Amino acid sequence: MARIVIAGMGFGGLSAARTLAGSGHDVVMLDRNNYHLFQPLLYQVATAALEQESIAYPIRALARGWRGTSFRMAEIVSVDLESRRLICSDGELSYDHLILATGSRTNFFGMKNVERHAFDLKRLDQAETLRNHILLMFERAAREPDPARRSALLSFVVVGGGPTGVEFAGALRELILHVLARDYPEIDPSETRTVLVEAASGLLTAMPGSLGAYARCRLEQMGVEVLLASCVADADQTQVLLADGTSIPTCTLFWSAGVAAHELAGSLGVPCGSAGRVKILPDLTIGGHPEVSVIGDMACLEQDGAALPMMAPVATQQGEYAARAILGRIAGKAPPPFRYRDKGAMATIGRSSAVAVTGSSSFRGFLAWVIWLLLHLYYLIGFRNRILVMLNWGYYYFFQERKIRLITGTGSNSQPDSCRSRHA
Amino acid sequence: MARIVIAGMGFGGLSAARTLAGSGHDVVMLDRNNYHLFQPLLYQVATAALEQESIAYPIRALARGWRGTSFRMAEIVSVDLESRRLICSDGELSYDHLILATGSRTNFFGMKNVERHAFDLKRLDQAETLRNHILLMFERAAREPDPARRSALLSFVVVGGGPTGVEFAGALRELILHVLARDYPEIDPSETRTVLVEAASGLLTAMPGSLGAYARCRLEQMGVEVLLASCVADADQTQVLLADGTSIPTCTLFWSAGVAAHELAGSLGVPCGSAGRVKILPDLTIGGHPEVSVIGDMACLEQDGAALPMMAPVATQQGEYAARAILGRIAGKAPPPFRYRDKGAMATIGRSSAVAVTGSSSFRGFLAWVIWLLLHLYYLIGFRNRILVMLNWGYYYFFQERKIRLITGTGSNSQPDSCRSRHA
Repeated sequence: MARIVIAGMGFGGLSAARTLAGSGHDVVMLDRNNYHLFQPLLYQVATAALEQESIAYPIRALARGWRGTSFRMAEIVSVDLESRRLICSDGELSYDHLILATGSRTNFFGMKNVERHAFDLKRLDQAETLRNHILLMFERAAREPDPARRSALLSFVVVGGGPTGVEFAGALRELILHVLARDYPEIDPSETRTVLVEAASGLLTAMPGSLGAYARCRLEQMGVEVLLASCVADADQTQVLLADGTSIPTCTLFWSAGVAAHELAGSLGVPCGSAGRVKILPDLTIGGHPEVSVIGDMACLEQDGAALPMMAPVATQQGEYAARAILGRIAGKAPPPFRYRDKGAMATIGRSSAVAVTGSSSFRGFLAWVIWLLLHLYYLIGFRNRILVMLNWGYYYFFQERKIRLITGTGSNSQPDSCRSRHA
Repeated sequence: MARIVIAGMGFGGLSAARTLAGSGHDVVMLDRNNYHLFQPLLYQVATAALEQESIAYPIRALARGWRGTSFRMAEIVSVDLESRRLICSDGELSYDHLILATGSRTNFFGMKNVERHAFDLKRLDQAETLRNHILLMFERAAREPDPARRSALLSFVVVGGGPTGVEFAGALRELILHVLARDYPEIDPSETRTVLVEAASGLLTAMPGSLGAYARCRLEQMGVEVLLASCVADADQTQVLLADGTSIPTCTLFWSAGVAAHELAGSLGVPCGSAGRVKILPDLTIGGHPEVSVIGDMACLEQDGAALPMMAPVATQQGEYAARAILGRIAGKAPPPFRYRDKGAMATIGRSSAVAVTGSSSFRGFLAWVIWLLLHLYYLIGFRNRILVMLNWGYYYFFQERKIRLITGTGSNSQPDSCRSRHA
């Protein structure tokens, strides 16, 4: 019986663990949190559409049904490739086979001021913090007499025109137009600004150009100002500065313009590609260590001349492959090289509106939105979570109302004079 | 048009605002949070049975439907009775009539060490913190080799045998026996201890003795050690010391043994009774200030020789009375004195088991539990919240499973060597 350790329980780790369960080996699942996070819906928690609990699933609840698996909540400090040990925050753990899947972090490209003042969405607590912040900006604006300060409180700058930026901007606009407009009679929705800043010349550049154009058109209809070919140069507590010198007065900067591999990738002593991702072999292992697979956002693998994108479907397929490859190796068989089967991509823009692409077909509008809805429900783990999410979405769809707009935490009581960033 | 300010949106403030809505006056609702909290179910959030969102309701969602009301999120610093102004964290607010309903806080009776190391349940964030802590104790115990430290991690001391202590101890026991026992194959439930410490000679002393005896019997069947006529004398990070010298090694001390009026009560310059509660006149106003009513936990009013209890029904009835009395005074009518109509009290002990008393009748067991369930659902604000709570309770009742057991927040990653209190 071999000990197979899976470090990181995102989409990749989850898929690997599911495949290895019941294989007769000792499968140890590691994560710094005690839950799997359905990251693609984090922006819905940040915009008060879903509860935290709806998009997080306790890993021990999975382990119950997966024979031979166990869970350990720990932060990984480093990997000792030679002695085949993980050094964790609470001790060591030796392995026979290792699947590294600790994912990615936000990339601010070295802009310290932006990093200090921006919100980003990687963790569950960040989504709650951002939700609290958005609602607090409205509470403050409601009694702010100074027009300039009031305008900054009600301006939201979203950086990055990929799926996260587009989905967040759309959801934020809906929150403002349909919910907060009724909650705050003191504020006219036309006083608010939502600005989407993208460095490229279009939105959703990974999809066909017509879908990006459709997304832009829909967002603009909802009142989003889309600035293409624009870059953020700097930021402080009261404004965002663009590279062309434009200053946007705002207390809220949301950053979704870059991701980089988890810090662990750089500490392995193996070659890394762009965004710090570990260069892996076609069987997803690293050179000289067939017992170590690296998968998901952490890993850089070229296919048909381009690096595979940092997306959940890639991680999921790699997780299953890595698990099967380990079982094959134990049985003395060499696995065939990994090949990603691209099933498409999608992004939702708002209620009844989305874009999707699969193979050579592309969809947009209501049908794409229904597909997005069903797929996300299907992939959400657990019957109860699906029911809860359906209930929230249904409630919102029919009543245009969100009931989760709570400002939680002890921090909500303190109200300093200036705009407050998450680090202040 | 008079300006009527309601300070505090607990049960009392909510009831007053509902009564004053549409009266043609300018009704301002103040609270330090942007939601009304259904406090009686806080212990269910702390034991992973309900989400935060299910027991909190945005006040602005209420204000939408209540004509003439508005909301302001602010902390009250002091009241200037002479100039009829509230001094808030973000400025001042003048009033013609004031209803003070800022409730109560936990009373540690001056025991600084206990205050430092104990968990209590007054705020929503405290419930989430306590839930995280309980789950974290199990995560740590699962890999703690030292038997003494492991035992302390798995020992939970609940102080106070009133409804909160009894309900929390019962819910904690169910969480451990039915959920965590399956989540943590590394831990045998018999390794865990739940100790309920009560200074009086029985539990639920506000109810008939037979119900207290029943509660004790049920809790002991569930494995709770009930220590009557026992007082806590001191506490540190690794133990609780009783007055008789007994030391209970534990990392978790839950305190529900006392409440005192909100700090504001003592700053008014009017006479206060026990627990710092403001002594009020039979029309709920304070002497010399017929324009200021004090209601709920903050107020001390004797009826039939005893002070009215600090309970939601008292606050609710006083809120409605104070609102009507203000409208009467504006119309030039003196209100009849307030009289509390006692409709009974209840406490739930576990799945299918509760005690209730109404008039001269008392109930216990399954029937009392069903009544408890229906009443709490009835009083929970909002259709969606009722559905969510029902869904959670139904799911738990039939599957004996809770899906909310997430360890959230950034704090969950850091794991110091010693047991950690909420302040560490």
